[in-house]
Amino acid sequence: MAKPRIMVINGPNLNLLGTREPDIYGGKTLEQINGDIAALAGELGVEVGFFQSNVEGELIGAVQGCLGSADGIIINPGGYTTTSVGLLDALKAVGLPTVEVHLSNIHAREEFRRLSLTAPAAIGQICGFGADSYLFALRALASRLSAG
Amino acid sequence: MAKPRIMVINGPNLNLLGTREPDIYGGKTLEQINGDIAALAGELGVEVGFFQSNVEGELIGAVQGCLGSADGIIINPGGYTTTSVGLLDALKAVGLPTVEVHLSNIHAREEFRRLSLTAPAAIGQICGFGADSYLFALRALASRLSAG
Amino acid sequence: MAKPRIMVINGPNLNLLGTREPDIYGGKTLEQINGDIAALAGELGVEVGFFQSNVEGELIGAVQGCLGSADGIIINPGGYTTTSVGLLDALKAVGLPTVEVHLSNIHAREEFRRLSLTAPAAIGQICGFGADSYLFALRALASRLSAG
Amino acid sequence: MAKPRIMVINGPNLNLLGTREPDIYGGKTLEQINGDIAALAGELGVEVGFFQSNVEGELIGAVQGCLGSADGIIINPGGYTTTSVGLLDALKAVGLPTVEVHLSNIHAREEFRRLSLTAPAAIGQICGFGADSYLFALRALASRLSAG
Amino acid sequence: MAKPRIMVINGPNLNLLGTREPDIYGGKTLEQINGDIAALAGELGVEVGFFQSNVEGELIGAVQGCLGSADGIIINPGGYTTTSVGLLDALKAVGLPTVEVHLSNIHAREEFRRLSLTAPAAIGQICGFGADSYLFALRALASRLSAG
Amino acid sequence: MAKPRIMVINGPNLNLLGTREPDIYGGKTLEQINGDIAALAGELGVEVGFFQSNVEGELIGAVQGCLGSADGIIINPGGYTTTSVGLLDALKAVGLPTVEVHLSNIHAREEFRRLSLTAPAAIGQICGFGADSYLFALRALASRLSAG
Amino acid sequence: MAKPRIMVINGPNLNLLGTREPDIYGGKTLEQINGDIAALAGELGVEVGFFQSNVEGELIGAVQGCLGSADGIIINPGGYTTTSVGLLDALKAVGLPTVEVHLSNIHAREEFRRLSLTAPAAIGQICGFGADSYLFALRALASRLSAG
Amino acid sequence: MAKPRIMVINGPNLNLLGTREPDIYGGKTLEQINGDIAALAGELGVEVGFFQSNVEGELIGAVQGCLGSADGIIINPGGYTTTSVGLLDALKAVGLPTVEVHLSNIHAREEFRRLSLTAPAAIGQICGFGADSYLFALRALASRLSAG
Amino acid sequence: MAKPRIMVINGPNLNLLGTREPDIYGGKTLEQINGDIAALAGELGVEVGFFQSNVEGELIGAVQGCLGSADGIIINPGGYTTTSVGLLDALKAVGLPTVEVHLSNIHAREEFRRLSLTAPAAIGQICGFGADSYLFALRALASRLSAG
Amino acid sequence: MAKPRIMVINGPNLNLLGTREPDIYGGKTLEQINGDIAALAGELGVEVGFFQSNVEGELIGAVQGCLGSADGIIINPGGYTTTSVGLLDALKAVGLPTVEVHLSNIHAREEFRRLSLTAPAAIGQICGFGADSYLFALRALASRLSAG
Amino acid sequence: MAKPRIMVINGPNLNLLGTREPDIYGGKTLEQINGDIAALAGELGVEVGFFQSNVEGELIGAVQGCLGSADGIIINPGGYTTTSVGLLDALKAVGLPTVEVHLSNIHAREEFRRLSLTAPAAIGQICGFGADSYLFALRALASRLSAG
Amino acid sequence: MAKPRIMVINGPNLNLLGTREPDIYGGKTLEQINGDIAALAGELGVEVGFFQSNVEGELIGAVQGCLGSADGIIINPGGYTTTSVGLLDALKAVGLPTVEVHLSNIHAREEFRRLSLTAPAAIGQICGFGADSYLFALRALASRLSAG
Repeated sequence: MAKPRIMVINGPNLNLLGTREPDIYGGKTLEQINGDIAALAGELGVEVGFFQSNVEGELIGAVQGCLGSADGIIINPGGYTTTSVGLLDALKAVGLPTVEVHLSNIHAREEFRRLSLTAPAAIGQICGFGADSYLFALRALASRLSAG
Repeated sequence: MAKPRIMVINGPNLNLLGTREPDIYGGKTLEQINGDIAALAGELGVEVGFFQSNVEGELIGAVQGCLGSADGIIINPGGYTTTSVGLLDALKAVGLPTVEVHLSNIHAREEFRRLSLTAPAAIGQICGFGADSYLFALRALASRLSAG
Repeated sequence: MAKPRIMVINGPNLNLLGTREPDIYGGKTLEQINGDIAALAGELGVEVGFFQSNVEGELIGAVQGCLGSADGIIINPGGYTTTSVGLLDALKAVGLPTVEVHLSNIHAREEFRRLSLTAPAAIGQICGFGADSYLFALRALASRLSAG
Repeated sequence: MAKPRIMVINGPNLNLLGTREPDIYGGKTLEQINGDIAALAGELGVEVGFFQSNVEGELIGAVQGCLGSADGIIINPGGYTTTSVGLLDALKAVGLPTVEVHLSNIHAREEFRRLSLTAPAAIGQICGFGADSYLFALRALASRLSAG
Repeated sequence: MAKPRIMVINGPNLNLLGTREPDIYGGKTLEQINGDIAALAGELGVEVGFFQSNVEGELIGAVQGCLGSADGIIINPGGYTTTSVGLLDALKAVGLPTVEVHLSNIHAREEFRRLSLTAPAAIGQICGFGADSYLFALRALASRLSAG
Repeated sequence: MAKPRIMVINGPNLNLLGTREPDIYGGKTLEQINGDIAALAGELGVEVGFFQSNVEGELIGAVQGCLGSADGIIINPGGYTTTSVGLLDALKAVGLPTVEVHLSNIHAREEFRRLSLTAPAAIGQICGFGADSYLFALRALASRLSAG
Repeated sequence: MAKPRIMVINGPNLNLLGTREPDIYGGKTLEQINGDIAALAGELGVEVGFFQSNVEGELIGAVQGCLGSADGIIINPGGYTTTSVGLLDALKAVGLPTVEVHLSNIHAREEFRRLSLTAPAAIGQICGFGADSYLFALRALASRLSAG
Repeated sequence: MAKPRIMVINGPNLNLLGTREPDIYGGKTLEQINGDIAALAGELGVEVGFFQSNVEGELIGAVQGCLGSADGIIINPGGYTTTSVGLLDALKAVGLPTVEVHLSNIHAREEFRRLSLTAPAAIGQICGFGADSYLFALRALASRLSAG
Repeated sequence: MAKPRIMVINGPNLNLLGTREPDIYGGKTLEQINGDIAALAGELGVEVGFFQSNVEGELIGAVQGCLGSADGIIINPGGYTTTSVGLLDALKAVGLPTVEVHLSNIHAREEFRRLSLTAPAAIGQICGFGADSYLFALRALASRLSAG
Repeated sequence: MAKPRIMVINGPNLNLLGTREPDIYGGKTLEQINGDIAALAGELGVEVGFFQSNVEGELIGAVQGCLGSADGIIINPGGYTTTSVGLLDALKAVGLPTVEVHLSNIHAREEFRRLSLTAPAAIGQICGFGADSYLFALRALASRLSAG
Repeated sequence: MAKPRIMVINGPNLNLLGTREPDIYGGKTLEQINGDIAALAGELGVEVGFFQSNVEGELIGAVQGCLGSADGIIINPGGYTTTSVGLLDALKAVGLPTVEVHLSNIHAREEFRRLSLTAPAAIGQICGFGADSYLFALRALASRLSAG
Repeated sequence: MAKPRIMVINGPNLNLLGTREPDIYGGKTLEQINGDIAALAGELGVEVGFFQSNVEGELIGAVQGCLGSADGIIINPGGYTTTSVGLLDALKAVGLPTVEVHLSNIHAREEFRRLSLTAPAAIGQICGFGADSYLFALRALASRLSAG
C-alpha cells in the first residue's frame, strides 16, 4: 500500500525563519524545520513535500496542486491567515484533511491576528509551539490518514 | 468599423470550475464557460479575450493591460472581491465599462461574501446564475458598447 | 404544454420611472419597461404579468398571490429591499424561483442600499443595467423554467 | 358584568399558515388556530375578535381600533416585529394589556429575528409553541383581565 | 399670481393626537392642529392641504401626488421617520422644498428615534415644539416659496 | 404507562423571590410558585422535581442529571441567561425538550437582558407573566410529552 | 411686569458668518442676524442679549451666567454640538428653557454632525433655515415664556 | 531528579464525553481519554493528575492548587473559555506553562466560541483533534519541561 | 445602640493576594488586608465580617446572606466584575449600601476590565489604591451608616 | 523637611456645586468642599492649592503648572473626563501622582460618562461619595507622598 | 513681490516640548524648533509666524486670524487632533493651504490617536519625524505657494 | 565610508502614474518621479534603488531583499496599505528604518483608505504631497542614516 503523502505549505515571510524576530518565531530556519518534519515523517511512514511562497496566488495554486498528488495538507498561511478568501476557497475546493499551524501563539499578540479565515476549513489548528506546531500537525494527519 | 473588444478576467480558484464544489458553482469547466462566451460573442459581433490567475497582482496587471487593448471588462474577482483595493484602483484607473459577475448568489452564503469592494467601480453586478452570469454580462456590455 | 408564467413585481416609487431622477434610474417609464418585458416574453415563449404598489403589504400579497398562478417571480422591491422581513418571508413561503433586480448599481450609491434583505431568497440578483436588468432576469427565469 | 374582550391581531404572511414552511410554522391554518382560540375563549368566558393583514398601516389601525372596543390584545406582528416603530407607538398609545406571540422560537432562527421592537410595550412574550402560543397568551390575558 | 400650495402630510398614529400620550405629544387633536395651520396659512397667503395615513405606501403616494399639485411639503413621518427608504426616495423624486417636523424632541427620547432617514431630503427639521412645530415649518416654507 | 417527569430548574437569586424587588418579580416565594406548579402537575398527570442554585456549575450539573431521570426541563437561568455557554452546552447535551421561562418581561428592562444564550436550545421561551410563566411552560411540556 | 429675557449664545466660527462657506451657512454676518433677532424681539416684547465665543469654557460660562439674568436660552453650539459634555451639564444645571439651532441642515452633511449631545437638554431643535432658525427659536421661546 | 508533574483540568460538560453530541466531541469518555493521557505520560516520563468540574470557581481553585504541586497545566475550559476572567487571572497568577486544548475545531462552530479569553495566558492552543488534542498538549508540555 | 455591621466580600483569586502578580496587586496577603480592615473598623466603631470565594454562586449567596445580618457591603468582585449579572441582581435584591473596590487601577489595564457590571448597584467605586481601597470604602460606609 | 504640596483641580460646572442638580452632586458649594479639604490637609500635614476653570486649555495649563510647584494632583475633570486627550497628555507630561475623583457614581448615570480618558494616567479613581471623594483622594495622595 | 507668509500653530502641551516624554517627542524645546523653522524659512524666502495655545478656542481664533494675514498654515493640533470639529470648521472657513504635522508617529501609539478629524481639511499630513515634521511641512507649503 | 543605500518600493497601480486619475495622483509618471528621487539622492549623497510590483508577495520579497543590501526603505504600499499583514511582518522582520508615503491625502478620500496597517512599522508617514512625498521621505531617511 502506498504511503500517505502530506504537503507542507508555508506562507509569506516564513522563508525568513531563524532571522526574523527570533523571540517570537524561534531560532530555527525553515530548512531546519523542514528537516525535522521529514525526519518525523520517516518515522511515521508518510511522505512529505514542501512549498513556500510569499505570493498569495501561488499558495492558492499549491493547495490546488494537492488534488490528486497529496492526501493531506499542513498549512501555515502566515500573513494571509486572516484575510485570504482565496486560500479558504482553495482548501474547500480540494477537500483534503488539513491542519493549520502557527509558530507563535496568535492569541497573545495583536488582536487582528486571532481570527483565522482559513481555520474553519481545517480539521484543527495548532499554535504557539514553534517548530513543534508542525510536528504535532504531522502526527495528527498521519494518524488520521492511516486510520482512514 | 472595428468590433468592440471585451476582456473576461477570472480570479482565484475559478480555474477549478467543474471540479470545485459543483453544487455551489455548477459542473461546467472554465474552458466550457469560455467556449459559451466566445460563441455568444460571435453572435453579438464582439471580440473576447480571456485571462485567469490566482495572483491578485496579475489580475491587477490584466485590468491595466486592457488600457488601449479592450473596450470593456467582465470580471469575476473571486476571493479578491471583498478585499482587493488594488483591483478597485485598477478598474478606476482604466475607466472602462465593467460588469462584475459571480456564479453563485453571494447573498445566500457567508455574510463576508456579500459586500464587493470592486462593484462600485462597475456598471452593475450579476450574481447567482452560474455560467449564465457571464453571458448576461456579455450582452450588457455588448449592447452598451454598440450603443456608445 | 402550458407556457411558463412569470410575475413581475415592482415596489415603491417605481411607478414614477421616467420622471424620477433620470440620471440614476433612466428615462423610460414603467409602462415602457413593461412593454419591453412583454415583447421579450413573447420571443421567449413565456407569459408575464405585472404588479406595482407603494404598499409593502400589497407587495407581500402579490408575492403570495403567485402561489398557483405563476411559475417564477421577478421582483424589484425598491425602498423595501433592505428592510422588509415580510417580503423575505413571503418569497420563502411561495418557494418559487425568483430573480431580484435593481435599475441602478446599488453598490455605487449610499451604503445602506447595498445589503438586500430579500436577495438570499432569490436565485440571483442583477443590478445596474436600467431597464435591461429586467430583461436579463426574464431570460434567466425563462431558461430555468424551460430547463426545469 | 360584561365579558372581557380580546383582539387577536396577526401580521404579514400569517394568512398563509398551514401551507407556509410547515416545518417551521406548523400545519394548522390561521382559521384552525382562530377556531382553537375561540373555543378556549368560550371556556374562559372572554370574547375574542380576529384581524389579519399584510399591511403595516392596517395593523396599526387595528391596534388603534381596540381603543374602547377591546380590553386586551394578542399580537403576532410577523415580519414587522423587529422594525415597526409605528406598531410600537400604537400599542403604547392604546395602553391596553398586550401579549406578543410567535409560532416559532425566534431565538433559534436568523439573528435579526430575535430582538422585537414591540415586545417592550407588551406584558410578556411567548414564542416557540406553534398555535399553542396563542392559547397561552389568551389564558394570560384572560386571567389578568378577570383579576384586574 | 397663484398662491403657493403646501401639502401637510402626517404619518402613523398622528390621527390619535390629543388622546395618545398627551404628556409627550400634547393635548390638541390633529384636526385642531390642522385648523391652526389653516388659520396661519390664511394670514401668510398660502394654500394648504392635509393628508394622514398609517400606511407607509399611502404616504409615499401622497408625496408623489404633490408633483404638479403642490409647491412645498410639510411632513411628519411619525414611526416611519427612521426606517422608510421609500419615503426618502419619494421626497427626492418629487424634489419639492420640504420641512420635516416632529411634535416631541426626538433627541430626548429613545436613541432609535434620533436619526431620521428622511431628513437629508428636507430643507430642515423642526422638533420639540408640539403643534407649533408645524406652524414654524409653514412660516419657513411660505417665506421660501414667496422668495423663490 | 409511566407519568412524564419534568424537572424545574431555577438559577441565581430566584431563591429570594417574594422579597426581591417585588414590583419586578412579584410577591410569591419560590416555594409558593413550586406549590402552584406541583398542583397543576397533578392535574396534568405529570411528575415534577425542583432544583435551585446560585452556582452556575450546579445548574449545569442539574441539567446533566436529567439524563435518564426526566423527560423535559423547565429552566429559568436567571442571571446566567445571557452569559452561560456551559448551560447551553448542557441543554444540548441532554437533548430533552426544554422551555425557558422568565418572571419579568426581559424586553422591557436593561438591554443586556434581552438576548438569551440558552433560548436557542429550548423549544420556546415565555417571559413576563410572573409565576404563571412556569405554569404555561408546564402545560406546554406536558402537552408535548403526552403527544410524543 | 418685566419682559422675558432671552440669551442668544453662539459657538465657534459663527463669528465668521457671511464669509465662511456662504453656500452652507448663508451670506448674512452674525451682526446682521443678531439685528434681525433684536428686531423680532422688539415685536414680540422680549429682551435679548448676545454672546459668541470660540472657547468651549466661555460658552459654558455664558450658559451659567444666565442663572438669574435670563429666562430662556437660544444656543447654536457650533463645533461643540456633538462633543461637549460640559455644555450639556451647564444647560442642565441652569435648567432654563432652551432651543438649539443650526443654520444648516445637519442631517444633510457629514454623519458625525447629526447627533447633538446637547439637544436632549433643550425643548427642541431647529436646523436648516439659515438665520431664520434663530427667529423661529425666538418665537418658540417667547411664546413659551409668555405662556408660562 | 523528580518527574515533571502536569495537571489536566477539564471544565463544564466534559464529564459527559462519550454521550454528549458524539459527532462533535467524539465517542470516548473522559475516563478513557484520561487513560490515554496517563499511558502516554508513562512513556514520556511525566506524572499526571486529573481534575474536572462544572463549577467555574472550582476550576479556578484547581489552577491555584497547581502552585507548588505541578509544573505545567493542560486545560480545556469548556464553556468558560470565552467568558472567564477568573480563570485567566488564575493562570496568570500561578504562572505555570499551560496548554489550552479543545476537542472540536472551535473555528468551525458558532462565532462566539472562537475567541478564547484564557488562551493569551497559555503557551499555545490546540483544537480540533478530539482526544488527541490532549496528547499533543502533553507532548508539548513534557518536551518543554524536560528542556527547561 | 448596636454597631453598624459591614460585610467584606472578595471574589476569585483574591485569596492569592501577596503571591499573585505583586507588581499589580501589592505584596499584602488577604489576611493582612483583612487585619488592617478590622483594625480600622475598631477605630471607627463598626463591626466587620469577611468572606472570600472563587465561586460566583457562593458570592451571590454571601451577598444574599447580608439581608438581616449586615448594614453595608464592601465588595471586590474580582474576575466576576464585568460579567456577573447574578451579583448585580443580588446587590439590587438586598438593597444595602455597597462600595465596590479594586486593588489595581482597572482603567490602566486591559480594556475589558474597565466597565463593571456591578458598579451601578453600588454607592461608588474605588480603584487603584491597593489595600487602601478597602480602607477608604470602610470609611465611606461607616460614615454613611452612622449618618443614616 | 517641606510639606508635600497637592493641587486640587476642578473642571467645568464644578463652580456651580451646591446649586446644580443637588440630588446628583450634593448640596455643598465648591468653597465648602475646598474648606473641608484644607482642614483635612492640615490634619495630614500637607499643603493644598485649588484651581477651577470651565476652559479645557486652562485646566491643561493648571496641570502643567504643577511641574515644580506640586507633588501630587487631585483632579475632577468634569465634562472633559471622557473626551480630553489634552488633559491626558498633560497628566502624562508632568508625571506626578494623580487621583481622579467624581462626586457622583459615574457608573449609575448615562453610558457615555463611564469611560474616563484621563483615568489611565492616574494612580486610581474614586467616584460616588460626593465631597468625600476628594477627602479620600487627599488621604491616598498624602499617604503615598509621605511614604515615597 | 511680497514673500509668502506662513503661520505655524501648535496645540495643547506642545509648549512643554523638551521636557515632556522626550523618548516620544524628542529633546528640543518649542522655541528651538521654532528657531529651526525660522532659519529654514529664511533660506526658502518665506515669512513665518508662531502661535501656541492650550485652549481650543484660541487655536480656532488663530486659524481664523490667518484670513488676510497669512498664505498658508502649518498646524499641529496636539490633543485636539481627533476631536475638534471647531478646528476643522475653522480650517475649512479660511480655506488656506494647510499642512498637518505630528512629532510622533501617531500610527504607532494608542489607537485613538490615529484618525485625525482635521486632516481632511489639509493638503497632507506628516508625522513621525520629530521637529523635522515641521521643516518638511514648511518646504511643502513654500514650494506650493511659490508655484501658485 | 560607504554611501547609505535606500530602496524605494512601490505597490500596485503606481506603474500607471501619470495616466491614472491625474487629478488625484498628479501628472508625473513613476519614471519621472524616480528620476527626481535619484537627482535628490545625488545631492544628499545616498544611493537609491527602485522596485515596483502589483504582486503583494513580490513586494514582500523586495522588502526582505533589503536585508543586507539596503540601509533604509521608502515604501508606498498602494492598495495593500490597509490589508497587508505580510508587508507589515516583512517590514518588522528586516527592521530597517522605513518611511511610508502616499501621493494623495489618504484622509480626504474613502474612509477605508485612512488606517494603514503598515504605518506602525515605519518611522513616520507622509501623505498628500504628490511626488514630493517621496522627496521628503528621502530627506528624512538620509538625514537619519547619516546621523545614525
